[in-house]
Amino acid sequence: MTVTITAFRQSPDRGAGLARDTRVRWALEEVGVPYDVRLLSFREMKEAGHLALQPFGQIPTYEDGDLVLFETGAIIFHIAERHAGLLPSETGPRARAIMWMFAALNTVEPPILDRTTTKLAESEEPWSEQRLRLTDDRIRIRLGQLSDHLGDAEWLEGGFSAGDLMMVSVLLRLKASGLLGEFPNLAAYVARGEDRPAYKRAFAAQLAVFTALSSP
Amino acid sequence: MTVTITAFRQSPDRGAGLARDTRVRWALEEVGVPYDVRLLSFREMKEAGHLALQPFGQIPTYEDGDLVLFETGAIIFHIAERHAGLLPSETGPRARAIMWMFAALNTVEPPILDRTTTKLAESEEPWSEQRLRLTDDRIRIRLGQLSDHLGDAEWLEGGFSAGDLMMVSVLLRLKASGLLGEFPNLAAYVARGEDRPAYKRAFAAQLAVFTALSSP
Repeated sequence: MTVTITAFRQSPDRGAGLARDTRVRWALEEVGVPYDVRLLSFREMKEAGHLALQPFGQIPTYEDGDLVLFETGAIIFHIAERHAGLLPSETGPRARAIMWMFAALNTVEPPILDRTTTKLAESEEPWSEQRLRLTDDRIRIRLGQLSDHLGDAEWLEGGFSAGDLMMVSVLLRLKASGLLGEFPNLAAYVARGEDRPAYKRAFAAQLAVFTALSSP
Repeated sequence: MTVTITAFRQSPDRGAGLARDTRVRWALEEVGVPYDVRLLSFREMKEAGHLALQPFGQIPTYEDGDLVLFETGAIIFHIAERHAGLLPSETGPRARAIMWMFAALNTVEPPILDRTTTKLAESEEPWSEQRLRLTDDRIRIRLGQLSDHLGDAEWLEGGFSAGDLMMVSVLLRLKASGLLGEFPNLAAYVARGEDRPAYKRAFAAQLAVFTALSSP
């Protein structure tokens, strides 16, 4: 039974790798599990067929035989639990790696997504520019705390884990903002993530979808 | 070894139960694990002692012997994994329950927190009221999707799980907004959560902290 995930037929970021299927692709590449991809248009994502799998009309989903999952965090955790390579086996280190998955999604990513919302969905509102400065300040607080914690370490907690996969994925959203450059150890941490062969394969796979779409 | 969690000495919601320690208390009550609480002032939360446990200077933390965890989602998952009562044991249903934890935190809560930020932290900004209407519309979309999915079911996925604990906790943030009342099945779902004896004990315990503080 082959794992099947869903992804945007036409990624809004034009292949920059920020859609959440890249995170799932990366996890599957790290553990060496092959997968199929079913591409969905924005219209198809809101149709009954997809809503039966994903009640919020989003991508990615994950199908493996009878099991259907959505939520990138849950999918990656499920992959990490069933295959070696993304979570330590000892109770304590395992719980700490899982903790960093949640920290990436629930403490570091929210102000970053708030920035994206203000920049894109509220670009024509009169407050857009002024509010962007507020969100940037909130992001700087989180980055500063994360930077202090990481220090000179290579990864957040010993060896590379699903927690790093998620944190690097979240921080990658800031690449174009210049904010990451204010924290050199975080910029280097993200670069180490991007340098992993599994990440490179995941990135190339999602880029190929965009390239195929835009070629004549 | 007794589990110790941290909580606000002076909860910003004045005992309404919305601080995240209530979620952890609820999980511990569901599985019958006694716990101690260490209360922290806002100043103490930003001091080195606490930052060594929680690099983002937040509550709650969870200490059990040598293991220190932060992030409510990670703490509740750790509790659910080690004690019966919050996760099914079969692989598929277990993964689906974990999925709902992530859905609560990453899909349903973000627009709700955005509303809170706009209402509280940006109350004096010129855009506050207008932006509040935007966030409310975004919340309605998520609530509508969740309501459609829940239908007449008692809980999200078979029996009560950590996914429901988290989803009810997230929806409780909307009690004062009136938005929940637009979706009667969600309002009833939240009421079922609040009616659980474990939730009642957790709520009473956090309220007692506020009551003790404000009594002469």
